[in-house]
Amino acid sequence: MAKTSSVTPDPGYAGLTESADGLPAAYYFDPAHHATEMSRIWQKSWIYACRSEEVRSPRSYKTYDIGDQSILLVRDELGVLRGFHNTCRHRGAALCREPQGRIAAAGIVCPYHNWRYSTRGELLQTSSYQHAEGFSLEDYRLYPVHVTEWNGFVYVALTNDPPPFASTFDLPLERLDNWPLADLAVGHVFRKTIACNWKIFWENYNECLHCPGVHPRLSQLVPLFGRALQDPRDHPHWQQHANEDDPKFKGGLRKGAGSWSMDGTPKGVEFPNLTPQERAAGHIYLTGYPSTFIVCHVDYVRAVRLRPLGPEQTELVVEFLFLPETLADPDRDIQSAVEFTSIVMTEDAEVCELNQRGLRALPHSRGVVMPEEYPILGFHDWVRSRLKGF
Amino acid sequence: MAKTSSVTPDPGYAGLTESADGLPAAYYFDPAHHATEMSRIWQKSWIYACRSEEVRSPRSYKTYDIGDQSILLVRDELGVLRGFHNTCRHRGAALCREPQGRIAAAGIVCPYHNWRYSTRGELLQTSSYQHAEGFSLEDYRLYPVHVTEWNGFVYVALTNDPPPFASTFDLPLERLDNWPLADLAVGHVFRKTIACNWKIFWENYNECLHCPGVHPRLSQLVPLFGRALQDPRDHPHWQQHANEDDPKFKGGLRKGAGSWSMDGTPKGVEFPNLTPQERAAGHIYLTGYPSTFIVCHVDYVRAVRLRPLGPEQTELVVEFLFLPETLADPDRDIQSAVEFTSIVMTEDAEVCELNQRGLRALPHSRGVVMPEEYPILGFHDWVRSRLKGF
Amino acid sequence: MAKTSSVTPDPGYAGLTESADGLPAAYYFDPAHHATEMSRIWQKSWIYACRSEEVRSPRSYKTYDIGDQSILLVRDELGVLRGFHNTCRHRGAALCREPQGRIAAAGIVCPYHNWRYSTRGELLQTSSYQHAEGFSLEDYRLYPVHVTEWNGFVYVALTNDPPPFASTFDLPLERLDNWPLADLAVGHVFRKTIACNWKIFWENYNECLHCPGVHPRLSQLVPLFGRALQDPRDHPHWQQHANEDDPKFKGGLRKGAGSWSMDGTPKGVEFPNLTPQERAAGHIYLTGYPSTFIVCHVDYVRAVRLRPLGPEQTELVVEFLFLPETLADPDRDIQSAVEFTSIVMTEDAEVCELNQRGLRALPHSRGVVMPEEYPILGFHDWVRSRLKGF
Repeated sequence: MAKTSSVTPDPGYAGLTESADGLPAAYYFDPAHHATEMSRIWQKSWIYACRSEEVRSPRSYKTYDIGDQSILLVRDELGVLRGFHNTCRHRGAALCREPQGRIAAAGIVCPYHNWRYSTRGELLQTSSYQHAEGFSLEDYRLYPVHVTEWNGFVYVALTNDPPPFASTFDLPLERLDNWPLADLAVGHVFRKTIACNWKIFWENYNECLHCPGVHPRLSQLVPLFGRALQDPRDHPHWQQHANEDDPKFKGGLRKGAGSWSMDGTPKGVEFPNLTPQERAAGHIYLTGYPSTFIVCHVDYVRAVRLRPLGPEQTELVVEFLFLPETLADPDRDIQSAVEFTSIVMTEDAEVCELNQRGLRALPHSRGVVMPEEYPILGFHDWVRSRLKGF
Repeated sequence: MAKTSSVTPDPGYAGLTESADGLPAAYYFDPAHHATEMSRIWQKSWIYACRSEEVRSPRSYKTYDIGDQSILLVRDELGVLRGFHNTCRHRGAALCREPQGRIAAAGIVCPYHNWRYSTRGELLQTSSYQHAEGFSLEDYRLYPVHVTEWNGFVYVALTNDPPPFASTFDLPLERLDNWPLADLAVGHVFRKTIACNWKIFWENYNECLHCPGVHPRLSQLVPLFGRALQDPRDHPHWQQHANEDDPKFKGGLRKGAGSWSMDGTPKGVEFPNLTPQERAAGHIYLTGYPSTFIVCHVDYVRAVRLRPLGPEQTELVVEFLFLPETLADPDRDIQSAVEFTSIVMTEDAEVCELNQRGLRALPHSRGVVMPEEYPILGFHDWVRSRLKGF
Repeated sequence: MAKTSSVTPDPGYAGLTESADGLPAAYYFDPAHHATEMSRIWQKSWIYACRSEEVRSPRSYKTYDIGDQSILLVRDELGVLRGFHNTCRHRGAALCREPQGRIAAAGIVCPYHNWRYSTRGELLQTSSYQHAEGFSLEDYRLYPVHVTEWNGFVYVALTNDPPPFASTFDLPLERLDNWPLADLAVGHVFRKTIACNWKIFWENYNECLHCPGVHPRLSQLVPLFGRALQDPRDHPHWQQHANEDDPKFKGGLRKGAGSWSMDGTPKGVEFPNLTPQERAAGHIYLTGYPSTFIVCHVDYVRAVRLRPLGPEQTELVVEFLFLPETLADPDRDIQSAVEFTSIVMTEDAEVCELNQRGLRALPHSRGVVMPEEYPILGFHDWVRSRLKGF
């Protein structure tokens, strides 16, 4: 790779033909800018909070924090999942102290002064003997938070005016219809706190120039990645090998491999309704800025969630979703899938931290987006559009 | 409780009849606002620093910090207690390094360059061989801090123009004349750092709506508290039971109890000069914003002191004061008193922290002051008056 | 000492005859002001980074941080020491992760995307298959940092327009020509993090009023210091003893002593080319604000380096430099020299921390510069000149 001559690329070449500047360096560490992004981006987007199974039964609850906002998710008695700010309307106390639990039959009762709310957020009762003139229970409902459940994934939006849910993703949601997403169960959770800005993570996600050096195992499993490409057309002369069947040129897994695991074989029970193309792809990515991407394999699905803990700290949570029969079968070596992906994500975390460390150099005003990094340009455009007018 | 119908309350009803808004939520966590409160409130009020017994003998000293201000208290050779900023006039070094100790006979000597001051703060000597033109020792006295000793309590004020000392308190100081406050000795000290803004603590102090749920033991000992009331007239129909002798309606301790202890009996030697009413009351509160309240029982006194350690952290110190003969008698079970009150204050600390946790919800601009919480409105008015013009 | 009468001093008296104000107190703790000093002073001056021996062989490297700036020092193949910001031009990743190491023969390779630079900072290769229109390797050299090697000391300057190197120091550099500085080797390193602003350290360095009280051992070894003087002419009546040979009046080490060690005798092999005056002096100081001073004794040299870690935290590193034959000889008790000086610097660190602790007193707007402290006034003038226009 790294031939630097600039000759005319083949028609259909996906790469950039004009240099593009990266985002300003301060966007990645300045606390004031981070606050702006929390308010302009994270508080205005659909954010993946948890799987539906974590709040399955009526009156089960879960809290989830986005920045300094604590969200209370409650399954109401009719089975509808409700979202509220986890804050009592009386004096602002936190309503639920535990990360998850069960609401009492009486309703959501504030542990400070026993104000009592229905699971739909209505204030049913205060602790006062009498109310002042003009005080009305109706005026003191819990502050609502928008919630969407899609295929077992729970998303929340802190804004009163969230965008259409499907617009969050880069593919039509039907694209994943052959995966029984709603029926899957969590077989493993991988967690890591990375010392980098959340956007550094997404930039890493959006290019494979780092794959040969950073991901030796993955580069073997996915030979196209081993050529530093995410898509065959990212190579300027992609047409030379356009008709070859070798995954090195075509994409997909190496010959003989069927899924992401230590030896490349599927470890879970395979999903029955996939098309031959879906089976051959080895992985399909669904990307939903800013908090999530989902990778569908033939035998498991990875739901990757991130969350800023500060300008230079990001929490990563990866859920490994399998068919219940996979998890019920002790002979299924799901650890092999878990281990493989955990290695890849640990490698990514390490270079993300390295990237963060170099950003403060005084003359470094911003980086440069290289031709193969056009998805990064797309991500930057998305960020810029959210910050517009700021 | 919690009847929400709004009918005409009895004449003399103490509660609010109009809804009142709480303070802006940011007042409880914004660092810039906290700095304003430190300067407008804490640096302009009388602050309880310590008991006189801690600086009893001539040349004994003690340091006490309020925010980033370190105060040096020194008993001079004539027995007058002096207050200074703990800072040398030469280059600003701290004068006394230990929390308490004894000034040498030579005076207060800066450990850096040996500038020497009298216990009255006069600069006696520098370490220079000769002084520059215009340098005068008189111009370099220690920076003074106002000090008041009252009944064995030492208060300091960082402002040059402190308010009249008595105006700090909600009762005339003579109200406690029957308690031999100056003669009491500290039998126990309870300390706790609470993760809340200092005003959250005072709001908790100023209402009993939380008592039934949060303080089960205290609600048994003080039956009126068990009804969520601080004063009989806080109930809109207080007249229905106005003539009843039951402490549930009248206030005071449950029948058979005499003080705040695990079994309700006094554990210390009782104060001899109390009136029957004072004995019957069970407790009398003297409140002095922003740093202190004093609770007088028949056998001991609690001096409660708070101090902000940051916008969301408050230090609580409770001194248990007894007659010397109580402390001299090993058969006196003062731990029973200590334990009871420590339980109550620990319960309060827990809900204060809960309150703090919920304040940042985006739509929560401020809480609501309920009818029984009129003392909170009084506290808010006091805070607002200090911030006026800000 | 400390006679406070103001009579006419002898001609030639070095002390101030007019009082001078210190720097504003906030300069020593305010984070915003600290950022200004980092940019106006530390990023615009020559800063001592390390000894040449640490990057002696071709392709050896070392990283050194000044505030949030990470500098990469690389010895190129021709033996020239090069300085760069430790940041890749692609997306800003840190290039070298370890504090020191060796560059591969291929060049400086970014561990993220394998961009490759020569040891002279030229970008040799990216990882892209083709470059965009207008992208030129020449535009993406590593960001350079100025480097000067002088006698085995490596200095760096983050500004594009550094001052002349020699102007950094208070003496002509030739003044130390009789010390074989370039040939010395590090025999010991003393490190300490001091809880004070970096200027507090320099103020301490610039006066000896604190010596009698703070440094009892040093005051015995250097009797003039024991009189709180750095120079005989700092005493207003210095002429009374102008012709006396006693080091108490003349300066230099006590009779019988030859160097700074526990018993005052030289422990290292003595430097052969010193003049009788240089041998008699006992110590010669070379001062280079803001980061360094060098003390030359007859048998060893101390290179003292400081670095702000924050507004109220400073890192101190003291290198003890000896002739190689000293270090080769196990019978040489260099620990005696190390111990003596470490005691002195630990004493200084303690009072520097004490000084920092007292600075925030509300009425303390600034300190006062006493007559003997004229070098502090010089330091303050130097600081003010760098902040001019700010």
